[in-house]
Amino acid sequence: MRHFLTTEDWSKAELQALLDDARELKANPRQDRLRGKRIALVFMNPSLRTRTSFQVGITDLGGSSVVLDAGGTWPLETEDGAVMDGTAEEHVAEAARVLSTYVDMIAIRAFPKFEDWSVERHDPVLSAFVRYATVPIVNMETIVHPCQELAMLMALQERHGSLQGQKMCLTWTYHPKPLNTAVMNSALLAATKMGMEVTLLMPSDEYMLDEKFIEAGSRFAGENGRGLTLTHDVEEAYRGADAVYAKSWGRLDQIGLPMEERLTPDALRRFIVDEEKMALTNNATFSHCLPMRRNVKATDAVVDGSNSLIIEEAENRLHVQKAVLSALNDQ
Amino acid sequence: MRHFLTTEDWSKAELQALLDDARELKANPRQDRLRGKRIALVFMNPSLRTRTSFQVGITDLGGSSVVLDAGGTWPLETEDGAVMDGTAEEHVAEAARVLSTYVDMIAIRAFPKFEDWSVERHDPVLSAFVRYATVPIVNMETIVHPCQELAMLMALQERHGSLQGQKMCLTWTYHPKPLNTAVMNSALLAATKMGMEVTLLMPSDEYMLDEKFIEAGSRFAGENGRGLTLTHDVEEAYRGADAVYAKSWGRLDQIGLPMEERLTPDALRRFIVDEEKMALTNNATFSHCLPMRRNVKATDAVVDGSNSLIIEEAENRLHVQKAVLSALNDQ
Amino acid sequence: MRHFLTTEDWSKAELQALLDDARELKANPRQDRLRGKRIALVFMNPSLRTRTSFQVGITDLGGSSVVLDAGGTWPLETEDGAVMDGTAEEHVAEAARVLSTYVDMIAIRAFPKFEDWSVERHDPVLSAFVRYATVPIVNMETIVHPCQELAMLMALQERHGSLQGQKMCLTWTYHPKPLNTAVMNSALLAATKMGMEVTLLMPSDEYMLDEKFIEAGSRFAGENGRGLTLTHDVEEAYRGADAVYAKSWGRLDQIGLPMEERLTPDALRRFIVDEEKMALTNNATFSHCLPMRRNVKATDAVVDGSNSLIIEEAENRLHVQKAVLSALNDQ
Repeated sequence: MRHFLTTEDWSKAELQALLDDARELKANPRQDRLRGKRIALVFMNPSLRTRTSFQVGITDLGGSSVVLDAGGTWPLETEDGAVMDGTAEEHVAEAARVLSTYVDMIAIRAFPKFEDWSVERHDPVLSAFVRYATVPIVNMETIVHPCQELAMLMALQERHGSLQGQKMCLTWTYHPKPLNTAVMNSALLAATKMGMEVTLLMPSDEYMLDEKFIEAGSRFAGENGRGLTLTHDVEEAYRGADAVYAKSWGRLDQIGLPMEERLTPDALRRFIVDEEKMALTNNATFSHCLPMRRNVKATDAVVDGSNSLIIEEAENRLHVQKAVLSALNDQ
Repeated sequence: MRHFLTTEDWSKAELQALLDDARELKANPRQDRLRGKRIALVFMNPSLRTRTSFQVGITDLGGSSVVLDAGGTWPLETEDGAVMDGTAEEHVAEAARVLSTYVDMIAIRAFPKFEDWSVERHDPVLSAFVRYATVPIVNMETIVHPCQELAMLMALQERHGSLQGQKMCLTWTYHPKPLNTAVMNSALLAATKMGMEVTLLMPSDEYMLDEKFIEAGSRFAGENGRGLTLTHDVEEAYRGADAVYAKSWGRLDQIGLPMEERLTPDALRRFIVDEEKMALTNNATFSHCLPMRRNVKATDAVVDGSNSLIIEEAENRLHVQKAVLSALNDQ
Repeated sequence: MRHFLTTEDWSKAELQALLDDARELKANPRQDRLRGKRIALVFMNPSLRTRTSFQVGITDLGGSSVVLDAGGTWPLETEDGAVMDGTAEEHVAEAARVLSTYVDMIAIRAFPKFEDWSVERHDPVLSAFVRYATVPIVNMETIVHPCQELAMLMALQERHGSLQGQKMCLTWTYHPKPLNTAVMNSALLAATKMGMEVTLLMPSDEYMLDEKFIEAGSRFAGENGRGLTLTHDVEEAYRGADAVYAKSWGRLDQIGLPMEERLTPDALRRFIVDEEKMALTNNATFSHCLPMRRNVKATDAVVDGSNSLIIEEAENRLHVQKAVLSALNDQ
């Protein structure tokens, strides 16, 4: 049984098939593909787009969804053999097996807690659900965000056509708080896998993404005969780019420290995506997952410019997710 | 494209058409008018009736709804050009445009924050959604509550028949905390527009509603050849009334002060709607939007009396909202 | 009009009819029995299984549900005649009557507040809904949990066949915090009513369940020619049992005390259900409602053993609840 946990284990051809089906679903949104199917949407973190687009997409395909919010339930234990006298009231062993008797698929949002990256990098909640569930699992963002990256690829293809050899600048951008690395991990995996020439711009080595994603990105780039360049040089990253994708994230080496020590230094506000930097590119498109702080992560001029793909990318969440659910349902 | 933001910009004839359709929908609740339509219900404040009646009504008409709760999402920025380094993670510019790609209508509850009335009187959240959304917007209570006032009108017409020239007493009533003025603003607009002779009873000038609603109410009354009387005299307000509508609200001049300074003085408990006051009327009907604190805002004897319309009015929320959604969908 | 508040007022034959229908619904899950019916699910406490299984079950039967969470609404007054100047913004008199105009059934989860058992033992929230609603009410757990006990009975019958004369050990088990007695109250009512020979194992008399449940259990046992034995002796309770049902609960005589005084003494950890105790039984099945803390309430070896019914029982929630809703709808 196949899950949709990360794009890493879906081949380039399989991802392209999902993207092609998403385009078909964009043209013909209401199809009877999930007739009578029930899907649980488990949110351990807030959501606006993900929740709405999954619910609408499932309804469009004739299925039904049940939303479970963190606030409406209780902490779950993920470790096998645990003596559960802490805060967790239930083990994923039970939650996943029971939900599997009620529904046909389970989609999960579970951010890392930013307490211990050595544990969190193994995606413990998602992994536990995969271990115990007897129905397909969909990742709605954990340490990666594969639905977002499919939506990004779809928006890029709609504007650029083929992505082969297109130059992608993936840039860290400012946000006052240390955020999840999931979206940039996924953007890196997706862009390299689809044959883009990728440069990853970070303020310093301290902001390096987990080595497993850097290694996978390098491997995918290599398989396509492309490169993955890591840099701290803004001009090098932007110069000649066909596409700019921005996201802020926190330092992995600071996970577990008190929040006041982890706040982003003001000096890094200069990484904001602005017209000056965009002028270095090859008339690049701009995108960023949402939510996005305006005039902090990117200026209004960039966000509202004709090269901005942010709304298209967000809309495409609906279409790619329908393609993913449809593919998992058909297996 | 038309929205349903306030009854102020819907003509008397248009409002009556909505009320007539609501009666038809009360008689025949299940009609295929929203087949395949998706509607987002965005709640930035708690709700029991609004949430249930919108969800049920949409299902009855063949549509589907997605509920977004404040608790499950994040604060939204409403000001254009803002440098978003405060608490807001997303601008309405994005939220409204993205939701517009997922759904066919957006309904919003967004109370004022009671921090700065000079800003809040312009209904910033609702206005921002109107500015950016590309689908119709429905007001589920902000600084006015037009769905409630339609429900009130429907309940009144069911009991009184024509409302022309009927004497309406709109009375402030006691509640320990300073509440939103939305319902009374709306009741004033609705009663004057439909040709009632309206008296607004407040404890003192300090409790005056925003001048823009007083002015609109006076204008509507004038257009119908009726009057709008403002008074602090309980007997004057109740004497001869055909209908009494009660609601508590906080002083606008105290918005922004610490809550402990804004608590309602005990002396004003005397504004409770009781049998003694009702005895002054012309056997008036009584109503109040819900929730309502019994024996604080009105006595059990009044609330449970045969002239009480509170349950009919609350039920009518379902019917009038279906009429509103249907009208917006048909344009 | 009949409600489903407790199994106490449903006869043995009526309960068996619900269980038989649940088996039919397990075999044929999608049936058009609630076509066009709307059901409100009111949760004043968190839920995972109850919420999911009710929503899925209602959809399977062609109906629609609206979920109302405590977090999304406000405290409700239950006492008639109350002067509502405390925290409650609305009386159940209004909430129940209004919901009755929107939906065809109302299901409610409302745990006792553990402040004053002399009040809470009368199930004030549920009782108030019954007093005022004009549609059938379903108990989703208050001071009893009748849906859970039907699911337990169904799982037991699937494994044991007839339950007549089977020996049931109901055991208190360890949990660090004092929990609701509802599930054990219900297990006691159900097991005695269905003709099992029941032993209730508690650490001491201080853990006695409310006398009204003990009395009802004794009466039901007597009607079946069986006994209800109360004991503090672990070996007596487990010896020869055909089924073991475990649940932790807090002392009724400590309700209202500060939580730190109510925490369960460490010495009672020995009540954990483990292989040593299970070895005393007649190869008994094991069950526990979920959530359940592993290696605190029961060991992994017991929970994961082939005699464990926990997942079957949880799955059966879906089937028995569909049978209950169907029966209430057919009256």
